[in-house]
Amino acid sequence: MAASNKKPSIPKGTRDFGPVEMARRNYIFDTIRNVYALYGFQQIETPAMENLSTLMGKYGEEGDKLLFKILNSGDFIKGAEVPGGAQAGLLSTVELNRLAAQLCEKGLRYDLTVPFARYVVQHRDELQMPFKRYQVQPVWRADRPQKGRYREFYQFDGDVVGSDSLLNEVELMQIVDEVFSRFGVRVCIKINNRKILTGIAEVIGAADKIVDITVAIDKLDKIGLDNVNAELKEDGLSDEQIAQLQPIIALEGTNDEKLDTIANVLASSEVGLKGVEELRFILDTLKALQLRNELQLDLTLARGLNYYTGAIFEVKALDVQIGSITGGGRYDNLTGIFGMPGLSGVGISFGIDRIFDVLNQLDAYPEAALSTTQLLFVNFGSAEAAYSLPALAQCRAAGISCEIYPDAAKMKKQMQYANAKQVPFVAIAGETEMAEGKFTLKNMQTGEQQLLTTAEVIAAVQS
Amino acid sequence: MAASNKKPSIPKGTRDFGPVEMARRNYIFDTIRNVYALYGFQQIETPAMENLSTLMGKYGEEGDKLLFKILNSGDFIKGAEVPGGAQAGLLSTVELNRLAAQLCEKGLRYDLTVPFARYVVQHRDELQMPFKRYQVQPVWRADRPQKGRYREFYQFDGDVVGSDSLLNEVELMQIVDEVFSRFGVRVCIKINNRKILTGIAEVIGAADKIVDITVAIDKLDKIGLDNVNAELKEDGLSDEQIAQLQPIIALEGTNDEKLDTIANVLASSEVGLKGVEELRFILDTLKALQLRNELQLDLTLARGLNYYTGAIFEVKALDVQIGSITGGGRYDNLTGIFGMPGLSGVGISFGIDRIFDVLNQLDAYPEAALSTTQLLFVNFGSAEAAYSLPALAQCRAAGISCEIYPDAAKMKKQMQYANAKQVPFVAIAGETEMAEGKFTLKNMQTGEQQLLTTAEVIAAVQS
Repeated sequence: MAASNKKPSIPKGTRDFGPVEMARRNYIFDTIRNVYALYGFQQIETPAMENLSTLMGKYGEEGDKLLFKILNSGDFIKGAEVPGGAQAGLLSTVELNRLAAQLCEKGLRYDLTVPFARYVVQHRDELQMPFKRYQVQPVWRADRPQKGRYREFYQFDGDVVGSDSLLNEVELMQIVDEVFSRFGVRVCIKINNRKILTGIAEVIGAADKIVDITVAIDKLDKIGLDNVNAELKEDGLSDEQIAQLQPIIALEGTNDEKLDTIANVLASSEVGLKGVEELRFILDTLKALQLRNELQLDLTLARGLNYYTGAIFEVKALDVQIGSITGGGRYDNLTGIFGMPGLSGVGISFGIDRIFDVLNQLDAYPEAALSTTQLLFVNFGSAEAAYSLPALAQCRAAGISCEIYPDAAKMKKQMQYANAKQVPFVAIAGETEMAEGKFTLKNMQTGEQQLLTTAEVIAAVQS
Repeated sequence: MAASNKKPSIPKGTRDFGPVEMARRNYIFDTIRNVYALYGFQQIETPAMENLSTLMGKYGEEGDKLLFKILNSGDFIKGAEVPGGAQAGLLSTVELNRLAAQLCEKGLRYDLTVPFARYVVQHRDELQMPFKRYQVQPVWRADRPQKGRYREFYQFDGDVVGSDSLLNEVELMQIVDEVFSRFGVRVCIKINNRKILTGIAEVIGAADKIVDITVAIDKLDKIGLDNVNAELKEDGLSDEQIAQLQPIIALEGTNDEKLDTIANVLASSEVGLKGVEELRFILDTLKALQLRNELQLDLTLARGLNYYTGAIFEVKALDVQIGSITGGGRYDNLTGIFGMPGLSGVGISFGIDRIFDVLNQLDAYPEAALSTTQLLFVNFGSAEAAYSLPALAQCRAAGISCEIYPDAAKMKKQMQYANAKQVPFVAIAGETEMAEGKFTLKNMQTGEQQLLTTAEVIAAVQS
C-alpha cells in the first residue's frame, strides 16, 4: 500500500454524510417509509448498475450524455478496436465516443423510474397487480455540480401500477399530507390534470402551444394580465385564441369554482371534460377525508408533460423559499419501452435533498430522532469499568442507548466527548459510589446530580 | 424512446430485491442498526464513487483488477490519446489499459474500510475520538459471479477508532451476541489474537511459517495429529519445532485452560504473552457479562493476518452449514495509507448475504417483521369505497397498515390479491354493512367473520 500525504478527497458533486446528517436523513427516510407501509406499499431495490441497453434512449439525448458509464471489467479488452482510420495520437470526439461504446456495457442508475419499469417487465409473472412499490436508492448523473445539484443523490419514489382507479391518486395525496404533517412542515399540494391542458389546446386549436401557454399563465402574479396576453401573442396565438383563454388565465376562487369555469371553457372538448371529472373526483374525495394541508388546483402545473397523461402533482413548502419538494403524476405506459404495453400507473417522488434543506431551515427535527447515546458512563479505571459494565448491560436491556468511555482518560476529556455527542446524562462511579452499589447520575443540561441505584438510573433516564 | 421486445435483464452478478426479500433484508438491517444504536454507534455514508487514487493500490494487484472503473463524463475526451505507436485496428492489452487509465478517474467502492479510512482522514478535524461508526452500503467487485458471490453486495461494518482500550473488543462481542440472539440464531464466537500467533512463530523461530501452521492445525479434527505433524514437516518445520508445537496443536479444555497452556509455551515471547493477557482480559470481562452464545478461543483463526494486529474474531452459525457469518479484528494503522499514521481501531463486519441465507434456512423471521398490509378493504364500487375511506383513515391513525383494493374488481380477484400479499384480515362493506354503519371483518386464516364497527375492527386487528 503506497502512502500518500495529500489529504484525500471525494469526486466533485458527491457527498459524505456524517453522523448528524445521517441521523437527520434517517429521520426523513424512516418517516416516509413508515407512512408508505401504513398504505400497504412494499419496498424493492434494484442494482446500481443497469445494462446500458436498458438506460440509453430513455432520457433523451441530453440524458444519454449524463449517464455514468462503467468500463467493462476483466476481458473488456477483447474485440475493442480503434475506430477505422485512427492514427496514434489524439483521438477525435467521434472516435472516442465509438471506442467508449465498445468499452462500456453498463451504466449507473440515472433515476428510479426506468429501473422500476425494467423490474416490472422482468418480474411480471411474479408480481401481484396492482403493485404498490416504494424505492429509496441513490441515482447518479454526470451533471455539472452546483449548489443543490449533486452527481449522486437519493430518490424516494412510490408508485401504484396496474390500476386505473383514481383512488390511487387520492391515496398518494393522503400519503403526501401525512408525511409532511409528520414532518411538521406546512405545504400546499398543487394538482392539475394533463387532460385539461390537452383540452385547452384542443379548444383554442393550438395543440403545440400548451407549454407556452402554461409558462405565460404562470407569470400572471409577477407581470400582470396585460403582459401575459402580450406574451401569448408573441408566442403566436391569435387575438381570438387569447380571448378564449381569458377565463383560464384569470382563474380564481375555490377549487370547485375553478373547475366550473374550466368545464365551461372546455364544453366542446371530450378529453378536457374527462380531465375536469377526474380532478373533481380526486378533490371531492379528499375533501371528505379532511387533509391537514391545502390542496390547490393549479393549471400552470405542467411538469413531465410528455410523460404524464392524467393527474399531475407538485408540493410546495409554505414557510421556506424553495422549489417543488415532491411531485408526480399518472402515466399511461410505464413499460412500453420494454415491450410490455398498456401498463398504467401513478407515482410520486419525494425530493429528499430539498426536504432535508427545508427541515434544516425550520429546525424541525424532533430531539428523539437525533439523539444517539442517552447515557455515558465515565471510566476512571479498570475496577470502575468492571463495576459499570453490568449496569450498562441492564440499561441496554431496558432500551437505553449507552456507552462507557473506553479509556480511563481525564475527566475533562470524557465530559468533552459527552458534550460533543450531546449525551444528556452521564453516570459516574468512583470509590464512594462503588461502596454504596450506586452511580452518581449527572443531568448534563441542568447540572443536577443524584446518587442512584442502576434501576433508579434507568428510571431517571427514561423519564 | 425506442421500444424493444427483448425481455430486459440486469448485469450478471447483480440482483433485484423484491418485496419479500426486502422485508427480510430490512429486518436484518434494522436489527443490527438498533443494536449498534444501543451501544452509541453512529451511522455514516460515503459516496458510491471514490477517486481511483483513493482506491488503487489498497487491495493488492488482484484487487485493483476487480475495481469497477467509471468512464470520465462530459469532456473525458480531452487529452486522451491512443498510446504511442498504436495503429487502427485491435489494441493490445497494454495499450488499452493505458487508454483506460486516461479515460477513468473514478471507481466504485470496493469495500467500506478504505472509504472509512479516507473519511476519517478527510474529516479528522470534525470527528470526536473515539469515533464509533457503523456503515451499511453496497460495494462492487468485478469478480467472476458464482453461487453466493455477487458483483454488488451490501457490507455492514462497525468500527471504533481512536481508542486502544480492550473494552471496545468486549463491546463488539456483546454486539455480536445481542444481534444473533435477536435473530434467534445460535452461534459460536471464535476469538484469537494476532500477537499469540506472532509469539508462536517467534518461539519456534519460524516467523514466515505462521499461516502454514494455522492451516495445518485447522485440519486436526479431519486428518488427526500424525497427519498434521506430517504436513508441518512438509511445510519445512524441523522435528524440534514440531515438538515445540505439540501443546498448541493438541490445545484442549476451557478457554482458561487453553490460555494457561499457551502462556506456558510462549513464556519466552513478550509479544505472545501480551496476546495472552489481552485475550484473557476480553474473555474474563465477557464471562462476567454472561453472553448467551459461546465464546471460543481458536488459534486457527488467521483471517486478515496482514491487517489485524490484536484480536481476531469470527462468528459461525451452529445450526446451518455455512462459512463465517461475521468477522473482524483490531488493526493498528487504519489511516496510514492516507498520510495520517497511528490511528488504531477495532471493527466487525456482518456478512449480510450469509446471514440472509441462515435466517432463510432456519425460517427465523418473526411474522411481524414480514407482514405488510394487515387489513384489506374490499371494493364493491364507488359508494362502498367512499363509505370505506374514512374507516381506512381511522385504522391508519391507529397504526394499522391497510389498503382498499383500488378497483371494483371481482371479489375473487380481490381475495386473490389479499392472499398473495398474505393480508391477515379483510373488511367487507356491502349494502347490509353500510345500513348498519359496520364492516364484516374476515379473518383470512380461520375464515371467521364478524360484523363490527370501525372501532371494533381496529381492536380485532390489533389483538
